[in-house]
Amino acid sequence: MAALPSLSDLFDYAESNPVLPKQEAKLREAVLRQNLIQAQYDRLNEGSRSLLIVVTGLDGVGKGSAINQLNEWLDPRHIRTIAFGAPTPEQAARPPMWRYWNALPAKGKTGIVFGSWYESLLRKYASSKMGSAELLHGVQEIQAFEAQLAAEGVQILKLWFHMSREAQGARTQRLLGDKNTSWQVTETDKQVEEHFDAIREIGAAAIEATQAPHAPWHIIPSADDPLRAVETASIVLKALQARQRKRFAAPADSSTPCKRPARLDAEQVEPLSRKDYKKAMTKWQARLGRLVRTDAFRKRGLVLAFEGMDAAGKGGAIRRVTQALDARSYEVVPISAPTDEERAHPYLWRFWRHTPLPGNATFFDRSWYGRVLVERVEKLIPAAAWNRAYGEINDFERQLHEHGVIVIKVWLSVSRDEQLRRFHQRERDPAKRYKITPDDWRNRKRWPLYEKAASDMLRFTHTEHAPWLVLAADDKRHARVELLQHIVGTLEKALKD
Amino acid sequence: MAALPSLSDLFDYAESNPVLPKQEAKLREAVLRQNLIQAQYDRLNEGSRSLLIVVTGLDGVGKGSAINQLNEWLDPRHIRTIAFGAPTPEQAARPPMWRYWNALPAKGKTGIVFGSWYESLLRKYASSKMGSAELLHGVQEIQAFEAQLAAEGVQILKLWFHMSREAQGARTQRLLGDKNTSWQVTETDKQVEEHFDAIREIGAAAIEATQAPHAPWHIIPSADDPLRAVETASIVLKALQARQRKRFAAPADSSTPCKRPARLDAEQVEPLSRKDYKKAMTKWQARLGRLVRTDAFRKRGLVLAFEGMDAAGKGGAIRRVTQALDARSYEVVPISAPTDEERAHPYLWRFWRHTPLPGNATFFDRSWYGRVLVERVEKLIPAAAWNRAYGEINDFERQLHEHGVIVIKVWLSVSRDEQLRRFHQRERDPAKRYKITPDDWRNRKRWPLYEKAASDMLRFTHTEHAPWLVLAADDKRHARVELLQHIVGTLEKALKD
Repeated sequence: MAALPSLSDLFDYAESNPVLPKQEAKLREAVLRQNLIQAQYDRLNEGSRSLLIVVTGLDGVGKGSAINQLNEWLDPRHIRTIAFGAPTPEQAARPPMWRYWNALPAKGKTGIVFGSWYESLLRKYASSKMGSAELLHGVQEIQAFEAQLAAEGVQILKLWFHMSREAQGARTQRLLGDKNTSWQVTETDKQVEEHFDAIREIGAAAIEATQAPHAPWHIIPSADDPLRAVETASIVLKALQARQRKRFAAPADSSTPCKRPARLDAEQVEPLSRKDYKKAMTKWQARLGRLVRTDAFRKRGLVLAFEGMDAAGKGGAIRRVTQALDARSYEVVPISAPTDEERAHPYLWRFWRHTPLPGNATFFDRSWYGRVLVERVEKLIPAAAWNRAYGEINDFERQLHEHGVIVIKVWLSVSRDEQLRRFHQRERDPAKRYKITPDDWRNRKRWPLYEKAASDMLRFTHTEHAPWLVLAADDKRHARVELLQHIVGTLEKALKD
Repeated sequence: MAALPSLSDLFDYAESNPVLPKQEAKLREAVLRQNLIQAQYDRLNEGSRSLLIVVTGLDGVGKGSAINQLNEWLDPRHIRTIAFGAPTPEQAARPPMWRYWNALPAKGKTGIVFGSWYESLLRKYASSKMGSAELLHGVQEIQAFEAQLAAEGVQILKLWFHMSREAQGARTQRLLGDKNTSWQVTETDKQVEEHFDAIREIGAAAIEATQAPHAPWHIIPSADDPLRAVETASIVLKALQARQRKRFAAPADSSTPCKRPARLDAEQVEPLSRKDYKKAMTKWQARLGRLVRTDAFRKRGLVLAFEGMDAAGKGGAIRRVTQALDARSYEVVPISAPTDEERAHPYLWRFWRHTPLPGNATFFDRSWYGRVLVERVEKLIPAAAWNRAYGEINDFERQLHEHGVIVIKVWLSVSRDEQLRRFHQRERDPAKRYKITPDDWRNRKRWPLYEKAASDMLRFTHTEHAPWLVLAADDKRHARVELLQHIVGTLEKALKD
């Protein structure tokens, strides 16, 4: 068996500027076009996976033309070109991967990504705005992102367009020389020749570090237009035709477990009197109200996830917190079964969409933890999917944390007896009857299963950057006061840093 | 029959600061809560209409508390509080109504709007940043917006919270006097007392001008907490229970028809030779390429709508234009049957979402004109809906135009013979066979119906701010060159202004 060519060999080959004879190009084109359309439609009908084509490489080597060609040879109505430039103010205010998450194509569709996560990283590094430690961190971020997408069934293909320094320079000069083409040349295109060696080196390092079976790189020799087009199309065709759904493992979870343990069954406490409750609520709501109106908080953001058995009092607890906030600064997102659109995207997509802007808060009434709770217990997904979710979730929360978003997670711990009492109470009260459904009774029967799932959840996702608060919730008053105290305490600590 | 109370009477009544005795409040509360939940669930199950509750009025009179109360008495998982503050940079870059369109709740759901279109208008006027002509224009904008939503089945309810000057002042002082409540008081709350008469006057004028059967105003006396809560809940209950789906007419179309007429059947022209075509394309693409890279264009935006019979060459024409653009600066949006999410919103919602940021272009491959073409011909909607769409569409395009977005609309006019030729050609070419479906043949049989619909469309939507280009499209080369010329000409003229 012949050894696979090394990356350096592939770069060298591309820099030899190979040419495809015109006649051969025509023949291959004709065959390719027919097969591409067929493969695209097979994929659409199957509807299982989306294909993400990352287009990168040297500037000024015809990446745009290659993509126009693809749009010509495939049915462009099912391809979305997703192009990123410098982040807009809105994008810059979110964690770096937010805009990429938001733009993911739905299942069955193809997305062509221009100005991808590689561009922003390499450009920042090349302009010396970033040290190598930060570069390494950026690479790890990319590895985790791609691994997660692949595990969720997104097929990833990464193309690096390449040619020799001389060929790139000559191409740029040729375009500049004609007023009908000079507008195509950007400032970056002009700088490639001068910085060729550095770009080649950084590019090679990034490719080497992110080469993976689930997101393979391909080097496209780009000096000859027909060869570039045919090569690109061949690789895309192979990707579209690839049938087997390999399952890839998510990357190892690198988050630090929290030192204070969190136990599921919080010790229930003495009920709080109505008078003490009112007094405490006024005090803590006021303190929270002042905190979220500070300049320090305006630079941060707050994400709160509420979980707990049915009737644990999540909604009521959330409302006692939002009373202290300005209606324009928060959003309550109730999480139930995903919509069709949400189902057609990787799992965390629907939560990424709701991450708050600086100075704002998002309350999740149930959250991404549904993956390892209801979806696990009700066997809605294979065990591999919820097993890998712990790491994905930790990674999601870490990204929020690193961006300055404060993550607060609350498990409202209600006893089985108290739940029963509340179910009966709800059934008796005409204004609350809507809150109780046959599902609630069914879930109640599976109490031990939910308990096991919640206990695993606490074990695997109780991290330094996003620890759980387990709240004794049999006494609603006590739970609400403790919740407010916890939020105030967490914010005060975070805003001091 | 007793005369309806005048607005002035209602204001006076609210300023008399009426009180609801505690015992009576309790009784009414109990009944209201039960009926509210019932009404909300009936509405949800029916799934027909969304309810939009606009919350406005004096500042510092407890609007927030009233809404918290509603959230307590209804199932809050089906209510979304939509709160607007000062526009974010992203919002400010779009036409003013964009952010309101984007936030509309889906059918069956309830949205509570804080800081609505009234707030931004009144605040701007009160701060003297706006003359009365502009105020009038703003009011008309609101009238058109609400009429359109109502016609699409959105139920609108507008609440003005009110009390006397003295009561507002006393309430503010009371809150300020206690450190546990002082954080609730905003700068605006403190200014109400001083500017009371002016605010009352502007508010009354705005209410008078926008009072409408499809979007009625209610004045809520707010000095007494229980009365405020019960009044708000009663009005919301009545709205939720209102069953009959009244059809409201859209407002009169105020756009100016274009003076140059547009005829559907463009005279077909001599085919262009391959050589002349290539030369012309290079020239016009270059000119367009330079134009969109000017500073003047970076302040504007471009929306292009492409319509035409099947096989008229829309996709190919669009690609010839995008070749001149930077992939990061445009989006091609293919319009087909709406998704479930899109169907659950007013018709233009899906198009508002895709309006471009400054310096960007959106290409619609088929567009909002589907309403008066395919949806009319295939009888997918009642005649009243497409009849009123002409005005709605003109209004949509006018708003884009007034915001500086250049609107270009193209009808690719292909003859019936040429269409047949292309259908056969597509069937013969394996790489193009996917483009032809049984639908295409069926639509072809309805050619006269589509022709009639297209002709009406040209007649009613060919406006000064967004005129149609009817493009002779039997010769693709000629059509593409003329299209580029038209776009360049339109841009050059618009950017000079």
